[in-house]
Amino acid sequence: MNSFSFHGGRLADAMAQFGMGKAPWIDLSTGINPHGWPGADNLAVDWQALPDTGALNDLEAAAAACFGTDPAHVCAVPGTEIGLRMLGDILPGAAIHAQPSYRTHGEMIPRSRPVALTELTGTEEATIILANPNNPDGRIMSPATLLGWLAARRDSAAWLVVDEAFADAAPHSSLAAHVQDGQRLIIFRSFGKFFGLAGVRLGFVLGPRALIAQYRQRLGSWPLSAAALAIGTAAYQDVDWTAAMRMALREQADALDAVLARRGYSAIGACPLFRLIETDDAAALFERLARHSILTRPFDYDPRWLRLGLPADRQALDRLDAALADD
Amino acid sequence: MNSFSFHGGRLADAMAQFGMGKAPWIDLSTGINPHGWPGADNLAVDWQALPDTGALNDLEAAAAACFGTDPAHVCAVPGTEIGLRMLGDILPGAAIHAQPSYRTHGEMIPRSRPVALTELTGTEEATIILANPNNPDGRIMSPATLLGWLAARRDSAAWLVVDEAFADAAPHSSLAAHVQDGQRLIIFRSFGKFFGLAGVRLGFVLGPRALIAQYRQRLGSWPLSAAALAIGTAAYQDVDWTAAMRMALREQADALDAVLARRGYSAIGACPLFRLIETDDAAALFERLARHSILTRPFDYDPRWLRLGLPADRQALDRLDAALADD
Repeated sequence: MNSFSFHGGRLADAMAQFGMGKAPWIDLSTGINPHGWPGADNLAVDWQALPDTGALNDLEAAAAACFGTDPAHVCAVPGTEIGLRMLGDILPGAAIHAQPSYRTHGEMIPRSRPVALTELTGTEEATIILANPNNPDGRIMSPATLLGWLAARRDSAAWLVVDEAFADAAPHSSLAAHVQDGQRLIIFRSFGKFFGLAGVRLGFVLGPRALIAQYRQRLGSWPLSAAALAIGTAAYQDVDWTAAMRMALREQADALDAVLARRGYSAIGACPLFRLIETDDAAALFERLARHSILTRPFDYDPRWLRLGLPADRQALDRLDAALADD
Repeated sequence: MNSFSFHGGRLADAMAQFGMGKAPWIDLSTGINPHGWPGADNLAVDWQALPDTGALNDLEAAAAACFGTDPAHVCAVPGTEIGLRMLGDILPGAAIHAQPSYRTHGEMIPRSRPVALTELTGTEEATIILANPNNPDGRIMSPATLLGWLAARRDSAAWLVVDEAFADAAPHSSLAAHVQDGQRLIIFRSFGKFFGLAGVRLGFVLGPRALIAQYRQRLGSWPLSAAALAIGTAAYQDVDWTAAMRMALREQADALDAVLARRGYSAIGACPLFRLIETDDAAALFERLARHSILTRPFDYDPRWLRLGLPADRQALDRLDAALADD
């Protein structure tokens, strides 16, 4: 299962290794919302012209309104992955990254060292990178706790960097309203996860204006495709869809929890887009589900873990249920 | 005309300043092919899933075949603009950039200083950035000359960096076949200009494998949108369209030259996607064409210059002809 424990989303590899099976594959290997924002295919995209500067401003304004922050502190990037890694060239000095978390956090700043969130005492001089909600365990830290860590860095050269890739599904967890010039707070947001459109490649950096200027210098003119501008702007402006989806995801996560509990697995996590189960037979369970054409996400650094994204519908949930029951 | 002398493509600004006029605007302010590769709107794009690693490999293989180089030396980036600027974080040391050329070349490496190509003697220890074909003057340097400058850097820490953004239209000018691990040669290619699809945001870095690895580290997984992967792969594989377009562009550039000559302007340049004219009344000419709803490209650093992209068809060429004649 090694090739599947690096990142999720390797469905083609799974099909090659396990065959097509008797049913279409169900991809539960990511935390991407299986219910994509429905307007993407109906937007006219002008592929020919260079994207207009005004369109970038419109997107950042729409996203800022969704995040609850000032557009002057928001910079769009062609995917959070690039945005995170650019920070490695922007931030000098020592950094630590919370563990366990998203793999890129340990790769984006050279010589960053991992720490457990229970062992942060004495690290106030270091820039810290963490995710909230966290991935893969879905843990949500309270904003009050994070603001305490931010306050501890107020008069230092260190930053609090929060990857809020999944925060659209849990908006109460976000620190976006606290981003301002006087704060040593940097936030990353991801478009593709909550809106279920990971192929668009769109993310955002939130931070003091001096940091935003450093990003714009590195991105240059036209950082985003015409499609990312059109789709992102329309989706962030669709507040009705967003509100309804937040409720629907919670109900579906409850239904997933019920199935997992019925089959003897206790699910960890407060982010409705995925659940983590801990079990001695995680490797065997990964293989068994794959033989039922269901791809999940194992972790090389913890062989007892398996992460499951949200099944798209009742039929997919029933297939997961049956596969879990098939000893 | 100041806001139009930074980059081309600011059509919305032009409409706001000069009004809509009596005809649809003709945008000649860029060097983007007005005849876009025609397949973009017919490709099915999967916006929901994370792009597959195999799709990136396929794109880079198709592009490498078009460039005439080994795919192991090719890395796709989400737009050449970002690719150029990433080099500023990758390359240490002194750099010079040829002048006049593309604005970003002077911004991408900190403390880079401008030089004229006629004054390169004694600069062999410095990394040099230049465009070939050059922009805005369309000058094409012979590969033999460039290979001489490359040879002069063989045993130094300096690089020859060639921005071949327009080389698809003039493939004989390219050094792509010379990229290899032992050479201090870095090349940038752009998808949007020759294929006329600037909204896709797709470019390539060509270089030794160690440099390619540094780019991949900064880009992370999923550097490109699903659309860039699908459109780029299909377009680079369309060798018939490419061959026919190269011939058509030369004919259309000849027709533009004839119109300019008839109206008393001598056009500079060997790249068929644009022409530069030098005239004492460039500012007045920009304004006059804009009042005819034709946007061209002035230059703040040389007020005697005006660059004109290729008109899309006979009707657009005739409108340009009439506007040039209207003293």
